[in-house]
Amino acid sequence: MALDEAADAGGRRRRRRSEKPDAAPKRVAHYNRVRNTLPFAEPFSSDQVEAIHNASLRVLEELGVKVLLEEGRDILRGAGCKVDEDTLMVHFDRGLVEEAIKQAPSDFIMTAGAPERDLHVGGREVIFGPGAGCPNVTDFDRGRRPGSYEAFVETTKLQQSFDVIQKLGPSSEPQDVPVNLRHYATMRAQLTLTDKIPWLYSRGPQQVAEGFEIMRLMRGLSEEEFLNTPCVSTVVNTNSPRQIDRPMSQGIIDFARAGQMNVITPFCLSGAMAPITIPGALTLSHAEALAGITLAQIVRPGAPVVYGAFSSNVDMKSGAPAFGTPEHLKTNFGAGQLARHVDLPWRSGGGTAASSPDVQADYETQLSVWGALLGGANLIYHSAGWLEGGLTFSYEKFITDIETLQTLAETMAPIPCAEDDIGFEAIAEVQPGGHFFAASQTMRRYSTQFYEPFVSDWSNFGQWTEAGEKSATDRANALWKKTLEEYEPPKVDEDRLAAVDEYIEKCKAEGGAPIMD
Amino acid sequence: MALDEAADAGGRRRRRRSEKPDAAPKRVAHYNRVRNTLPFAEPFSSDQVEAIHNASLRVLEELGVKVLLEEGRDILRGAGCKVDEDTLMVHFDRGLVEEAIKQAPSDFIMTAGAPERDLHVGGREVIFGPGAGCPNVTDFDRGRRPGSYEAFVETTKLQQSFDVIQKLGPSSEPQDVPVNLRHYATMRAQLTLTDKIPWLYSRGPQQVAEGFEIMRLMRGLSEEEFLNTPCVSTVVNTNSPRQIDRPMSQGIIDFARAGQMNVITPFCLSGAMAPITIPGALTLSHAEALAGITLAQIVRPGAPVVYGAFSSNVDMKSGAPAFGTPEHLKTNFGAGQLARHVDLPWRSGGGTAASSPDVQADYETQLSVWGALLGGANLIYHSAGWLEGGLTFSYEKFITDIETLQTLAETMAPIPCAEDDIGFEAIAEVQPGGHFFAASQTMRRYSTQFYEPFVSDWSNFGQWTEAGEKSATDRANALWKKTLEEYEPPKVDEDRLAAVDEYIEKCKAEGGAPIMD
Repeated sequence: MALDEAADAGGRRRRRRSEKPDAAPKRVAHYNRVRNTLPFAEPFSSDQVEAIHNASLRVLEELGVKVLLEEGRDILRGAGCKVDEDTLMVHFDRGLVEEAIKQAPSDFIMTAGAPERDLHVGGREVIFGPGAGCPNVTDFDRGRRPGSYEAFVETTKLQQSFDVIQKLGPSSEPQDVPVNLRHYATMRAQLTLTDKIPWLYSRGPQQVAEGFEIMRLMRGLSEEEFLNTPCVSTVVNTNSPRQIDRPMSQGIIDFARAGQMNVITPFCLSGAMAPITIPGALTLSHAEALAGITLAQIVRPGAPVVYGAFSSNVDMKSGAPAFGTPEHLKTNFGAGQLARHVDLPWRSGGGTAASSPDVQADYETQLSVWGALLGGANLIYHSAGWLEGGLTFSYEKFITDIETLQTLAETMAPIPCAEDDIGFEAIAEVQPGGHFFAASQTMRRYSTQFYEPFVSDWSNFGQWTEAGEKSATDRANALWKKTLEEYEPPKVDEDRLAAVDEYIEKCKAEGGAPIMD
Repeated sequence: MALDEAADAGGRRRRRRSEKPDAAPKRVAHYNRVRNTLPFAEPFSSDQVEAIHNASLRVLEELGVKVLLEEGRDILRGAGCKVDEDTLMVHFDRGLVEEAIKQAPSDFIMTAGAPERDLHVGGREVIFGPGAGCPNVTDFDRGRRPGSYEAFVETTKLQQSFDVIQKLGPSSEPQDVPVNLRHYATMRAQLTLTDKIPWLYSRGPQQVAEGFEIMRLMRGLSEEEFLNTPCVSTVVNTNSPRQIDRPMSQGIIDFARAGQMNVITPFCLSGAMAPITIPGALTLSHAEALAGITLAQIVRPGAPVVYGAFSSNVDMKSGAPAFGTPEHLKTNFGAGQLARHVDLPWRSGGGTAASSPDVQADYETQLSVWGALLGGANLIYHSAGWLEGGLTFSYEKFITDIETLQTLAETMAPIPCAEDDIGFEAIAEVQPGGHFFAASQTMRRYSTQFYEPFVSDWSNFGQWTEAGEKSATDRANALWKKTLEEYEPPKVDEDRLAAVDEYIEKCKAEGGAPIMD
């Protein structure tokens, strides 16, 4: 969290007072960079972390991973893995995996459309991503419906409008755009509606190559510069347990070759695709993440990868996925320990299984975000708007979640504690039983000292009743509409955009790009 | 968190399998004792903690505290404080305060109506108390209304029904019981409807003495035993800034004399009754808590006291109190550092300013409870059901908050990580792309491994729609009614109860007990 440039040199959380005595300075905060100053929860001893890590290496070596893509198996065989072409199983030598871990960078910079949107991935940085990958969207006015290009544009504008969402994500799948043309629409929308770092699905080599070319043109980079400028990301989900499918293997290879950010995330639901125990689920998840990271590092040593871990549990009565559970939080704590053990930036996720933006949706999401923060995650996807375990993106929930994320960002900001902050004189100034409203320290700071919420209503019951008994979610409904009304697009280089449009037209004329099976 | 006696000796979270193969063991957890295994957030350096502590001692020494009760001033004067009888100001010598801090116990045991309800106050123990002190109550069936004896009974039964509320609190003020008789009703209800540790308001020496006598009779203690058996608690709020009123001073004296638990809690709202800065609010709050603790320790060295800190901030536009704000969380972190600096158990509080049990009520309450947990608080009052900044207790919110508290308690439980928990064999058993539902490790553990929520609904959107689109709060409405229906009173010693009733009748016949101005 950082205040705008008017914050004084000592980092105090206030602005210069205006010349006019009655024009109180307004507090302006931005959240382009958030540093996690919380302590990390570490329930496992270092011996236990080592034991899980070793069990994962044993899984990779003795049991192996099924790699469905021939090119992937060829690359791994070339690096010394044992490959069985009948079963498609790849057995990873422990030394090879350890070498790959060493080659992967501990942190790196992602370049955005504006310098203040650049991201440092790793260390104590926290990057919040929106609810992503949702086939449906919902809001109180239009109800639940399949994701569309219109919804994609709206949700992308919402992401651009709040600094605390530092990284874009595909909140709504634009199902009304043919899949062979969809990547043109989503890339162009992201690059014109926002100046934040975009994503690109790994749906086959041609789509990825074209997405990269759009990025390169839009950022005005030479081909060589592009290969050394991480500026677009993908998420690769393994097919737990122990399988990497064709488009996912291809995505690892293509993003590594291009030096672009690859978030390799096993989605290990304990009891379903992963063992029912937390150490067991962590062992499998760790093994799969390391398998993907190893492939990436063989393709290009030093390629920017993120260690993904998005493990929760299922309801053992129904098999339904669950989020914000004790098991979800604890797995996050353990995943953080494992990520730090291999010294890689790591990605987690918030979540809820609720079907409406109700109190359950809220407590599950906040619980899971705390799990990620206390686990020390660097990227926290699905931190706003995700509903129904990712099947739906809720506009209202996005807004209420943003309030929580901003509160968390402010909570992690340092607390000035100089003599004037302790303020013995301010205490001396107010008599016993009096109040500080008019104290001189208060007068100097009242308009900038505190975080001002935009959803929360602190009026009393009578005022609240008179104002129509609006719930936070009712207010959120008005707020997303206001946000879209007030949305302003970032400045875009028109020449570069013309080059992008020309390129997209050419690709479309050639029939677009197929998705990979 | 601990599982019931069927948990095996190694602390594994499962029960013995039943002899009948189709009778899956059921997971039974209780939360009578919760240990905080989270790391503590410590934003202040040890130098800064020392600086705040010293500023507080300077406030006590140079500025002083106004003590409205003559007996309080006399006691303090007798111990060496400088007292001005015109201004009623008491100036505390720094050495006297430091001596008092040394005499106060770092931790102690509270004795309840059943041994499993005894509480260890201090160390890493966490005790959750309900929303307390509310003049009003609300639920979806009966709406918002003044607190009554009926509501007092209901809310006390609700507190008894969930282990995770380890300590009773006055959720509803029984406004329909005359104030000179109210303590008889509340004491008797607590001691017959629950076996947990009760509270007693400090509303004057006669009410307190009678409440103690009721406790003594109900616990079957001699007068001397009672004085050495902490079994009832009060909360003393200072009148910030720098004032302790008559009933509060009297409460400190009476509870200390009787060796009963005294939670001395300045309620310092930053910007209103306390400085606008976090270090300033902490300085004032720390000074006031130490003033009360010093008085208690002069009255009886070693008396069980709890360092209270319930500091948040106000909305600087309206003066309305706010909770779950960044400032609230940060003040909790700092208060924890100060409490550990003086090595005393400490009390914090959750809270929300919302007017209905909506998403705001949820996120503010959870945020503030996390602030208290990461601050290392030993007692967290107002952790369930509190609404409108304490003006109203919500039955539905109590239930949804309990779900969050149980999740937190489970999250803090240790994670078994032996060889069988890592379970290499379980991973080997399931083929790539398969599932673990039928794996032997899963079959051994499926019915006991995971926390099972009682509010959260993890069904999919279609099932949820068919079931009537019930929100979590709708379900909570049904759940509090079910809880009251299924409520069972604890076993009560009939002879002792008869003695209590005889005593209460005698007191009533004498006209009850007045409250102190």
